[in-house]
Amino acid sequence: MSRLNKSKQSIWKVEDNQITRKKDILATEEPLEILLRAGDEQKTLAITMRTPGNDYDLAAGFLYNEGIIHSKNDFTNMTYCVDAKQQEYNSLRVQLTVDSMPHLHQFERHIFTNSACGVCGTTMLDDLSQRNIPTIPSGPIVEPSLITSLPDKLRQSQALFESTGGLHAAALFDLDGNLLAVREDVGRHNALDKLIGWGLLNDQIPFHNKILLVSGRASYEILQKSYVAGVPIFCAVSAPSSLAVDVAERFGITLIGFLRGNRFNVYTGIERIQATEPALTN
Amino acid sequence: MSRLNKSKQSIWKVEDNQITRKKDILATEEPLEILLRAGDEQKTLAITMRTPGNDYDLAAGFLYNEGIIHSKNDFTNMTYCVDAKQQEYNSLRVQLTVDSMPHLHQFERHIFTNSACGVCGTTMLDDLSQRNIPTIPSGPIVEPSLITSLPDKLRQSQALFESTGGLHAAALFDLDGNLLAVREDVGRHNALDKLIGWGLLNDQIPFHNKILLVSGRASYEILQKSYVAGVPIFCAVSAPSSLAVDVAERFGITLIGFLRGNRFNVYTGIERIQATEPALTN
Repeated sequence: MSRLNKSKQSIWKVEDNQITRKKDILATEEPLEILLRAGDEQKTLAITMRTPGNDYDLAAGFLYNEGIIHSKNDFTNMTYCVDAKQQEYNSLRVQLTVDSMPHLHQFERHIFTNSACGVCGTTMLDDLSQRNIPTIPSGPIVEPSLITSLPDKLRQSQALFESTGGLHAAALFDLDGNLLAVREDVGRHNALDKLIGWGLLNDQIPFHNKILLVSGRASYEILQKSYVAGVPIFCAVSAPSSLAVDVAERFGITLIGFLRGNRFNVYTGIERIQATEPALTN
Repeated sequence: MSRLNKSKQSIWKVEDNQITRKKDILATEEPLEILLRAGDEQKTLAITMRTPGNDYDLAAGFLYNEGIIHSKNDFTNMTYCVDAKQQEYNSLRVQLTVDSMPHLHQFERHIFTNSACGVCGTTMLDDLSQRNIPTIPSGPIVEPSLITSLPDKLRQSQALFESTGGLHAAALFDLDGNLLAVREDVGRHNALDKLIGWGLLNDQIPFHNKILLVSGRASYEILQKSYVAGVPIFCAVSAPSSLAVDVAERFGITLIGFLRGNRFNVYTGIERIQATEPALTN
């Protein structure tokens, strides 16, 4: 694929009262349309704003997280629709193995409502628990130094972020702290969808005995996707939201936030963190 | 409104090999369902994950950005649906002035596609230009020191961020650098929707002769919302995407990024920046 995930741009740098002309590099943002095809039937499933690159991973991860596919055997191929003028590899068609279009009710509504007039976080967790996702195993147990070593490894591999400063990343590590894969995108959800799609296409799902690191904050949707992918230890460089913590607590994920330097916060699942000094209660 | 926009949580702080128990404060994340009502007809327009608080602003800004309402006279009232059990102020019903449900085709599709198989950024800009949004005026012209003074003012007013570290913000300033309004949310789009909704409900739209500052990055959707609200000078603390720059260029917005300390980058619309020293070309 030769599509560009970064664009050059002439900009002005302003410092105090001085203006200078410079070249700058931007992260590319373009729409991706995901078309679902079953037999001869076709429908647009989603249009998402993303950074071009790893689009097959993105589509696979998106479909997996939505519960539309469960393995790479659930589709026969993915192809760009390149016949339309001007569309520049922005439409991806996924041909499902099944002959009839799956029921997309869950996708269309996305969030469970418990009455004609009301939604809440609790019902969303109840809904998630009804999806029959395998339980996250109780292990592994890791040392704090392993966790604190991860952000540097992510940064070193984040080539695109280095040049643009404008990308989110999601990275997967093994229990020795080796980086297995990293995916970047202007959208936080897309970076994770790409990483999970990579896992699906490379027979690495579920992500048991793996550690996931995301560059930004941890929201409900990010934790929900991690749970579906089977992640036992989830780390974010920034803060989690209340509902992200609720998901982690309910489904047995170790949720780590503010992972910076030699320290981090553990919101849930402290039993997977092995410290040499005993835990102190305040 | 007594709903909580932050939640207390017991966490573990890990530093080197030592674990201590602490209290922490999280930004609350809960779904908000926006129900549209016209005459006796009602439909769910959207369910968005947001931080509770300023929900009326959020709904007003969302409807305005989508082109469903154009002024506060286009709806007669907004009410929480509090009859459902367990839903905790998470459904907001907007009663439109018109008697029949507006055509929501644009909303349902959201992004213009130029053929049966293809979308791209250019067609999205073309689509936006067909919405008959008033042109952004050529002024104002501001000094760099005014721009660089804004982030500190935002931070001082961001009470919730201070306690949680987990929120995005959007702030509006006048040409003397006075903060007019700030809105916070776990979601970047929501913070801006809330700010624009505040403007609509307080007769401050369009935001001509105002400066907008957002805490994070600048994506297509963020610039698109700013354009619809009439913002001439848009500032982000972090990087813009390629398509954000395209929107700013096409619709005459001054786009500033990496606004930190005494410096910033200007991607488009340098003519609104008044420096005492003449512009240098490299």
